[in-house]
Amino acid sequence: MSNWKKKYVEMDQVIREKRPMIHHITNYVVMNVTANVTLCMGASPVMAHANEEVEDMVVFASAHVLNPGTLSPHWITAMLASGKKAKELGIPIILDPVGAGATKLRTDTCLRILEEVRPDVIRGNQAEVMILAGENAQIQGVDSLETGEAPVEAFKALARQTGAVICVTGPIDHVTDGETVFRIENGHPMMGNVTGTGCSSSTAVAVYCAAGGPTAESCAVGLAVFGACGELAAEESRGPGSFQVAILDALFNAPSRDLGARLRIKEL
Amino acid sequence: MSNWKKKYVEMDQVIREKRPMIHHITNYVVMNVTANVTLCMGASPVMAHANEEVEDMVVFASAHVLNPGTLSPHWITAMLASGKKAKELGIPIILDPVGAGATKLRTDTCLRILEEVRPDVIRGNQAEVMILAGENAQIQGVDSLETGEAPVEAFKALARQTGAVICVTGPIDHVTDGETVFRIENGHPMMGNVTGTGCSSSTAVAVYCAAGGPTAESCAVGLAVFGACGELAAEESRGPGSFQVAILDALFNAPSRDLGARLRIKEL
Amino acid sequence: MSNWKKKYVEMDQVIREKRPMIHHITNYVVMNVTANVTLCMGASPVMAHANEEVEDMVVFASAHVLNPGTLSPHWITAMLASGKKAKELGIPIILDPVGAGATKLRTDTCLRILEEVRPDVIRGNQAEVMILAGENAQIQGVDSLETGEAPVEAFKALARQTGAVICVTGPIDHVTDGETVFRIENGHPMMGNVTGTGCSSSTAVAVYCAAGGPTAESCAVGLAVFGACGELAAEESRGPGSFQVAILDALFNAPSRDLGARLRIKEL
Repeated sequence: MSNWKKKYVEMDQVIREKRPMIHHITNYVVMNVTANVTLCMGASPVMAHANEEVEDMVVFASAHVLNPGTLSPHWITAMLASGKKAKELGIPIILDPVGAGATKLRTDTCLRILEEVRPDVIRGNQAEVMILAGENAQIQGVDSLETGEAPVEAFKALARQTGAVICVTGPIDHVTDGETVFRIENGHPMMGNVTGTGCSSSTAVAVYCAAGGPTAESCAVGLAVFGACGELAAEESRGPGSFQVAILDALFNAPSRDLGARLRIKEL
Repeated sequence: MSNWKKKYVEMDQVIREKRPMIHHITNYVVMNVTANVTLCMGASPVMAHANEEVEDMVVFASAHVLNPGTLSPHWITAMLASGKKAKELGIPIILDPVGAGATKLRTDTCLRILEEVRPDVIRGNQAEVMILAGENAQIQGVDSLETGEAPVEAFKALARQTGAVICVTGPIDHVTDGETVFRIENGHPMMGNVTGTGCSSSTAVAVYCAAGGPTAESCAVGLAVFGACGELAAEESRGPGSFQVAILDALFNAPSRDLGARLRIKEL
Repeated sequence: MSNWKKKYVEMDQVIREKRPMIHHITNYVVMNVTANVTLCMGASPVMAHANEEVEDMVVFASAHVLNPGTLSPHWITAMLASGKKAKELGIPIILDPVGAGATKLRTDTCLRILEEVRPDVIRGNQAEVMILAGENAQIQGVDSLETGEAPVEAFKALARQTGAVICVTGPIDHVTDGETVFRIENGHPMMGNVTGTGCSSSTAVAVYCAAGGPTAESCAVGLAVFGACGELAAEESRGPGSFQVAILDALFNAPSRDLGARLRIKEL
């Protein structure tokens, strides 16, 4: 059994046995989808965003997702408060900087979360991540318009600067903690035709961080699992509608489908 | 034809002919799902939560669902105002105490709704219901960690104390008005793998209360119908993704699938 | 090739090549669905509602949807600000007056958007549109209770009065700019059994306005495409659950299914 397959099988078992709670403060568009992704991976989702309760809720979490995809002022203060509490308790925090670069509010909010919360992981598309790194990036609304080779050195620099594991998803995913870089070749183009795929990959990362801690390895396995399930789903679907049904089924049935053999993670 | 089957067929016909409006103030995660459950059962969903309109909207409703699953202060005041108006008008009110016990805000909000609105029905999992009964209960986030025999006497006591029909769902569902207790054996374990199943069962209860009034019998039929459709869906699906598609189809097609013969309701 | 088929094929190609961004301020119930409809039609969805960012976001849009389906005060101010900015920039604005007539808040908000924003297109059911026209209409919650012949002259008068293209959907759809009237016979009764069908048809209209400008022709093609995909989906599904999966697949696969031959648009 390959090393990655072994890691995956162990973490998957831990998740399905312990059902770690993943507290999301996320956007309206994907709440249902990411809750179902969490459940299908064997973990337990909670969505709670009120300033009056986030600090009471996050104490039960094994990982915490902050996703400012449809943000407004009350949600920003909640993310900051909840994030700080999670940090204090050593709960892995995953920031998904949806649309950083598209508006000042989003960029500023993400930078503020970076500074005040110091998340353990950042999972975004290339444009979002480059914006956080202070680089120019081409962005249209919340979509990245990346082309060419991935700027891996910039990802590593951002990891070192922020202390976070950087996960950049796209046709090829990259994960780095500033030293090691993993390249993940799982996934399928159909994933780009369904809303919430990026947000769901952040959830997958959070679930694996709940099991294995917020390391580059946990993140790489989480992304590879999600991408491999996307491959299985693409084989069994006829378009984005049936694809989003099939990927939930694939995530749920992963243990019986020898998913470990499908993971394509390489260290650069 | 058994007594329960007869009741079901009659109520189902009333619902599909009259299309009662079910006003939900519910959480972001399940709004789409519960709107579709309402439609598939033959009723008409409305989601409206603004303090500025809830009292104007609820007057059209034949049942009113209050679900503080992703609550915040403005939603709490809206639930109280709307609930009081519904009470005044004799519209059945179903409280779904999502996550009662998980945070002080949720517990307090549910207790406040109990006291100020006096809902006709409470539909929750065992932990949520026990929290409202003032008992200790094991809860993780919004999931119940129940084990062992259901504390039926405690459910009856809560029914008598609140004047509400108590519906406790889990592998086996219990419904009681404080005197009679119904045990419902419909359902399937796959239902626990999809987000919003509990919330949807509250919607099912609301739809049947719209047809038959907020009695233990209406609630029992609503839960049995929903559980039986879950059984049908499980036979036709491969995981939680296809299951949530199939349960909507099953609810919609219930009249042609002799659902009445599948209901397993017993009086204790 | 018929004239309509030719228009459709040209606009569809433009959309799938340019991927125009459609900024929605819409209701919680349908956000996920309408984002997926946007993607499946080849365009790019953004959902953003904060007063602090809507004006910064809408500048990237090729069409803007305002849908007060689950409105609250902050969303109303955002719709007004964002709508005015879009108007200033010449970005086509589609108002979906969900539930106009059901509550004073909804009616007033829609009228205020009409007056202050002057949307380019209004897409609603018959009751909603008649309310905006100042006529009595039968409404239950957010559903129209229309019967009999469509009051086409009233639609034309509203178009002339508002300067907007009026799109009235139902078993038969009508589109008018005050002069020309198109009657669209595409669609399927199953569409009424899924939540968000009306909202999704507004998205379809927005996507085609992004490609062809906010004309009666663009709107007619958008509605016909959406209706024709509903027909395809109905053939391939067993109920509302599988239908909503199938319509997304059909929208995505439209170019390979000779959709143009299915469009049934007639000028009255």
